[in-house]
Amino acid sequence: MYDLRLDYFDFDGGRGEAARIALSIGGIEFDDHRIAMGEWKSARNDTPLRAVPVLHVDGVAVTQSNAINRFVGRLGGLYPDDPLQALRCDEVMDAVEDVIVKVVPTFFMQDEAEKKAAREKLADGAVKFYLEYFQKLLERSKGNYFVDDQLTVADLKVFLWTRNLSSGTLDYVPTDIVDKNAPSVAEHRDRLAAEPGVKAYYAGR
Amino acid sequence: MYDLRLDYFDFDGGRGEAARIALSIGGIEFDDHRIAMGEWKSARNDTPLRAVPVLHVDGVAVTQSNAINRFVGRLGGLYPDDPLQALRCDEVMDAVEDVIVKVVPTFFMQDEAEKKAAREKLADGAVKFYLEYFQKLLERSKGNYFVDDQLTVADLKVFLWTRNLSSGTLDYVPTDIVDKNAPSVAEHRDRLAAEPGVKAYYAGR
Repeated sequence: MYDLRLDYFDFDGGRGEAARIALSIGGIEFDDHRIAMGEWKSARNDTPLRAVPVLHVDGVAVTQSNAINRFVGRLGGLYPDDPLQALRCDEVMDAVEDVIVKVVPTFFMQDEAEKKAAREKLADGAVKFYLEYFQKLLERSKGNYFVDDQLTVADLKVFLWTRNLSSGTLDYVPTDIVDKNAPSVAEHRDRLAAEPGVKAYYAGR
Repeated sequence: MYDLRLDYFDFDGGRGEAARIALSIGGIEFDDHRIAMGEWKSARNDTPLRAVPVLHVDGVAVTQSNAINRFVGRLGGLYPDDPLQALRCDEVMDAVEDVIVKVVPTFFMQDEAEKKAAREKLADGAVKFYLEYFQKLLERSKGNYFVDDQLTVADLKVFLWTRNLSSGTLDYVPTDIVDKNAPSVAEHRDRLAAEPGVKAYYAGR
């Protein structure tokens, strides 16, 4: 096996969280290196792309959250072997990134009116559109999970996003946005929250 | 094998091109469905996310360019079997997307002075930064290719980006930006252009 260290922020969410949960579910030992917000300014310059997560594999730093999710997913049995199922798993993970990338700029908006307008536009536009798309993908998979009727890193990725959308931490995004626009995706969120491996991970935090 | 149709724009570049080249190199039959710019406005609404490329696998539409690259790379022998090498291949592909996503908004800028300022800032900033990063990755792989000393879809992805940067089609981005900031990446670009499978693909166009 590999010697693994995962660098990410010290909170329960964001781009590094799916890999932490997947490693936990897979029972794979790793150094869970959490960066306090106050350390970030200096720690940032030690990362390859001034961003986290970074996974150190046998001492070599690797970037890109979905690449990391896929790798730890393979190690932990949360990534399909079959090429077509793997494609679908990848599609879902990258689609979540698509919509996250659209929301990220609003975090840096200083002007509250500007932020409000941008968030409301996203809530009615891209976020709703992607939720409806994930609803269709769930219908396509005809099961409880996005791919192949098994838990994969794609489920973790969507869950973390929909949990965040429903949490009330995103100002001006209605907390019922998932339930209202994509009821199957809301059920998926609740199913994932109740998943034994996910529950065990958070119980151990 | 699968019945494949790839929908993408009718030009030699962009997010669908790596998959077309990879399918050609792998000798994999597919319906190379090219969308004329004039058709896009109506064709767009038939795509799952109002975007291309879309790969139809046995009639099912799948989105996300790097997911598609990975799938066709696996089919065509241009994607590593080893999980760690696969991680590195994925890292490179997603890093190219990182920087492409930063440049895309400039394509829609109507004001020429605004576009000039944005492009110049990117050329001196993110584009240069990522080129230097790819230079480091090439040094890490100690070879002619990004991963495992073999041609992969990661090489195709970087090549298409660096060829575009050097082509003069991106106004206000100096055409020597690759050669000046990342000489090994420039050599990689020229090596890829001379790769038999790549040459054969373009000879057949």
